Amino acid sequence: MKIDERLDRLRELMKEHDFAAYIIPTDDFHSSEYVGSYFKAREYMSGFSGSAGTLVVLQDKAALWTDGRYFLQAAEQLKNSTIELMRSGQPDVPKIEEYLHDNLPEKAMIGFDGRTVTKRFIETIQEKANEKQVSFDGSEDLVDQVWTDRPPLSKEPVWELDVEYTGKSRAEKIQEVREKMQAEKADQLLVTALDEIAWLFNLRGGDVAYTPVFLSYLLLTKEQIMLFAHKEIFSAQLLEKLTREGVTIKPYEEIEQAVSSMSAGTKVWLDSGTVNYRLTGSVPEKVEILDQESPIVLMKAVKTPAEMEHMRVAHVKDGVAVTRFIHWLKTGVGNGGVTEVSAAGKLEMFRAQMEGYLEPSFSSIIAYGPHGAIVHYAPTQESDVEMKAESFCLTDVGGHYQEGTTDVTRTIALGKLTEEEKQYYTTVLRGNLALSAAKFVEGVSGQNLDVLARGPLWEMGMDYNHGTGHGVGFILGVHEGPQRFHWRTATGTKSVPLEEGMIISDEPGLYLEGRFGIRLENLVLCRRGEKNEYGQFLYLEPLTMVPFDREAILPELMSKKELEWLNTYHQRVYETLSPYLDEEEQGWLREMTAQIQ
Amino acid sequence: MKIDERLDRLRELMKEHDFAAYIIPTDDFHSSEYVGSYFKAREYMSGFSGSAGTLVVLQDKAALWTDGRYFLQAAEQLKNSTIELMRSGQPDVPKIEEYLHDNLPEKAMIGFDGRTVTKRFIETIQEKANEKQVSFDGSEDLVDQVWTDRPPLSKEPVWELDVEYTGKSRAEKIQEVREKMQAEKADQLLVTALDEIAWLFNLRGGDVAYTPVFLSYLLLTKEQIMLFAHKEIFSAQLLEKLTREGVTIKPYEEIEQAVSSMSAGTKVWLDSGTVNYRLTGSVPEKVEILDQESPIVLMKAVKTPAEMEHMRVAHVKDGVAVTRFIHWLKTGVGNGGVTEVSAAGKLEMFRAQMEGYLEPSFSSIIAYGPHGAIVHYAPTQESDVEMKAESFCLTDVGGHYQEGTTDVTRTIALGKLTEEEKQYYTTVLRGNLALSAAKFVEGVSGQNLDVLARGPLWEMGMDYNHGTGHGVGFILGVHEGPQRFHWRTATGTKSVPLEEGMIISDEPGLYLEGRFGIRLENLVLCRRGEKNEYGQFLYLEPLTMVPFDREAILPELMSKKELEWLNTYHQRVYETLSPYLDEEEQGWLREMTAQIQ
Repeated sequence: MKIDERLDRLRELMKEHDFAAYIIPTDDFHSSEYVGSYFKAREYMSGFSGSAGTLVVLQDKAALWTDGRYFLQAAEQLKNSTIELMRSGQPDVPKIEEYLHDNLPEKAMIGFDGRTVTKRFIETIQEKANEKQVSFDGSEDLVDQVWTDRPPLSKEPVWELDVEYTGKSRAEKIQEVREKMQAEKADQLLVTALDEIAWLFNLRGGDVAYTPVFLSYLLLTKEQIMLFAHKEIFSAQLLEKLTREGVTIKPYEEIEQAVSSMSAGTKVWLDSGTVNYRLTGSVPEKVEILDQESPIVLMKAVKTPAEMEHMRVAHVKDGVAVTRFIHWLKTGVGNGGVTEVSAAGKLEMFRAQMEGYLEPSFSSIIAYGPHGAIVHYAPTQESDVEMKAESFCLTDVGGHYQEGTTDVTRTIALGKLTEEEKQYYTTVLRGNLALSAAKFVEGVSGQNLDVLARGPLWEMGMDYNHGTGHGVGFILGVHEGPQRFHWRTATGTKSVPLEEGMIISDEPGLYLEGRFGIRLENLVLCRRGEKNEYGQFLYLEPLTMVPFDREAILPELMSKKELEWLNTYHQRVYETLSPYLDEEEQGWLREMTAQIQ
Repeated sequence: MKIDERLDRLRELMKEHDFAAYIIPTDDFHSSEYVGSYFKAREYMSGFSGSAGTLVVLQDKAALWTDGRYFLQAAEQLKNSTIELMRSGQPDVPKIEEYLHDNLPEKAMIGFDGRTVTKRFIETIQEKANEKQVSFDGSEDLVDQVWTDRPPLSKEPVWELDVEYTGKSRAEKIQEVREKMQAEKADQLLVTALDEIAWLFNLRGGDVAYTPVFLSYLLLTKEQIMLFAHKEIFSAQLLEKLTREGVTIKPYEEIEQAVSSMSAGTKVWLDSGTVNYRLTGSVPEKVEILDQESPIVLMKAVKTPAEMEHMRVAHVKDGVAVTRFIHWLKTGVGNGGVTEVSAAGKLEMFRAQMEGYLEPSFSSIIAYGPHGAIVHYAPTQESDVEMKAESFCLTDVGGHYQEGTTDVTRTIALGKLTEEEKQYYTTVLRGNLALSAAKFVEGVSGQNLDVLARGPLWEMGMDYNHGTGHGVGFILGVHEGPQRFHWRTATGTKSVPLEEGMIISDEPGLYLEGRFGIRLENLVLCRRGEKNEYGQFLYLEPLTMVPFDREAILPELMSKKELEWLNTYHQRVYETLSPYLDEEEQGWLREMTAQIQ
């Protein structure tokens, strides 16, 4: 079926249910960033495969909203459909709620699968829709009836992370969460975010691409630990162990019933920004809702000393693989025959050679020349191009290892660059180094530091249309909150202070549409530094160990201090990686990281 | 009467009224930063003369809260009293509400003059006090009965600013405010902030030290413009003119009655964060309150082109006076006999020589050596010291001119400095220059840029305990919001985006208690720069025209770019000021601003 046939079939079903509009978001039932193939309803109905976007279907038209990262990709993927692309946040682009308000008649009904949106999302729309007395029905998954060859729900086996890796046992973590519940006088805590559940239980799974989590819900009370999941994903041994620790495993589908039978007069802690609409709606009227961020979010973001130590190990392994890849690419591209897809395969091979490698932490971006300007480009057979010994190859890749999760971007010079290309590379590098070298007092958030990365570009009248950095999970989501680097905070959110143990990416970029893209990304670990009469100071330790490309650097554009930062980092990279490289690679890395004056 | 006698007298009155505690804040009836002498009740009762602080008197003890700027000064001024100093924000220092909660019995009554606090302030206390069912009575001004020689309310004449200076007529401004009221469906707007009223009417007065405003309240409706003020402060001519323009002048004291007789069913816009407690409490129950920042705050902060142009002129005049003063001080201090107080007098003389000079915009800080470490030190006869040809003199001064308001800090080397003194001076200067050179996109706030000023100090493990910058009014308060430079935003406030026309100070500092203080402050004007596919860029134009002290600079600690910024600024200072200086001063300034390599 073509996209438009799928839309037509959906429109027939909409008529049957009297829905004037049907909303298809990106989420699974858990507000996950990446979703299992069962949940890719928006991609199935629109053809757009980005990780963020919302499709709204009316009888006579349809539109898809996505953000700056995906403008180019979405335009490409939607061009043969009747779906209009809505570039969120651009001038004159209506918001979803405005579009619905302007296009729907009075008292229209809007349908959607209430498990794939949050209550907060619907409330945003509702406010505007109230003017037209529009109503909402979240009970029907209409796409399920269109999508005849829909894959089944994933039920991959669960595996356990030893406390030697996590630094804290399940029991300790649950105890801490219960203390936080007590402080808020909450009787129950409902958690539906898969990474929070995996973190709390020191368990990992395989139900979602790039994120080793398992489909589940958690209902925690003072006495009970109820985990709603497919029983068959646990080994008999693990089941027995969990039971011994007081965990009750209940069927995945029974969460709605459990929520709807909560006792009157109790208080449940849930975050309506992540718990799905239908589940939030199932809470009985006489149960008090404490609607705020789950206590696990911040606990998970602050890594334990064991996690920090293992993350360093993972980054050495990943550094070896990525550095080998860069050496292979730079020295081999001139011989011809290297394409984006084949290079991605080669990189995966280098990583697979490292002990403890599990899987990629997101879809590898190997973007040659103009493709580098598409912020979240991932090469496919259709888009694949052969690389030549000129311009840049933007490589943004990451992996999960037994010891942790990585995410690194290097922009690789494949041949002689123009002065302009070098100037831009150097400017982006200066921003990366300045942020990475930041030292600051306790209380400071990523919002306060973002200017360090963007400053050199702003000075040139340039910028990039994405955040400077995101949190990274420990063998969990490669994007996690609450910490981030961005000068702007989304409405209704606040910027959290950076704390020792938080890991964040530092990834400024510059994108010249149709020409090339540059992004340079290290993960940094927030550490406690000196404490004196001025306060507790914090600094950022680089985790990523991969050289920058000296062939793209114009040293005369860098200050003495910036060159010092670069040289110190490069020396550390060489010392860390060289023991694991062969002689040829070692020699190459020595040259690559030699001090620049 | 000594302080303790005053407190005892107050305690007798408290007993008569059954008040277990009595709160004496700093404010007048208008939440002004500086207050007329009639309103200095907290200073009268405690002896502490700083511009911020709250005195709480119980039967058996008393305590005064003030912030980091005043810790040293307050300790000095309270040392002979029984009043305990509470250093707000320091670890283990209770908040006022905690102190009251811990020290008061159940169902106690707390008294205060309800015209000198805001509703929001009382609510902060109330939340905690509720646990003990404490009640509040804002009807009694007990200090008035203790303070037998209290000065009368000020009634200085009002004068008018020509539209040539303000760029907008009263009628235009009132029209704009009414449009904002209409957008919020507000029938009335109650404004009590004196600078907002003065700005709206293009009028200035003399009722408050350092701020040329007049005691008044404004009640604006769709049809009426009611100004509550002492009639005798207007000339007959001005009265006639105002009447012709539809302004009704009513007695100052009648505001309470006017508020309490608002019609049921109407909606009044007021900001309970600035309108006083008693007035907010006078709004009839059936009147809806729209409690948010007055629309005038942002309008006033964004200067008109005429105001910008005049501000530049005021800064040239002030620059000439301050530069002459620096020349006089540096060349004359070696002859002896120069004290902080005599130097302040000399500076005032230099300023008084400039045409259009009106008055200081705050109490001059001329702080020699260790006094420089007291952030808001103002020399008095008691504290005065003679300066020697060594160490620093920190000079933070400002004035109102017919063309605008200035505020500048220079730290002046009075003789040979140590390497350490130079190192710190250079570090503070680097922060000042980096913030001043910032270029950024629309939407960015002062919170995002603060790190540029603090970064060089943070790098050394040092910091300063105050904001980096405040807004400045146009012949109004030298401190005004909403824009500011500070990485931290106060709870409940948000950081506003910088806009063309906003004026802010850029004043990093470093304070070594008992040794010296360094602060370097320029006012900068936010301007629109290039607009391109990355957005609308903004930059900061320096208004202040006074040289930095080259004798305190270690060029080897500065980057090439920082030296460029300094040299460009110095060249501009020389070119701007030299036409107004005599030959000797010119020659000196030429050397002072000569390019540093």
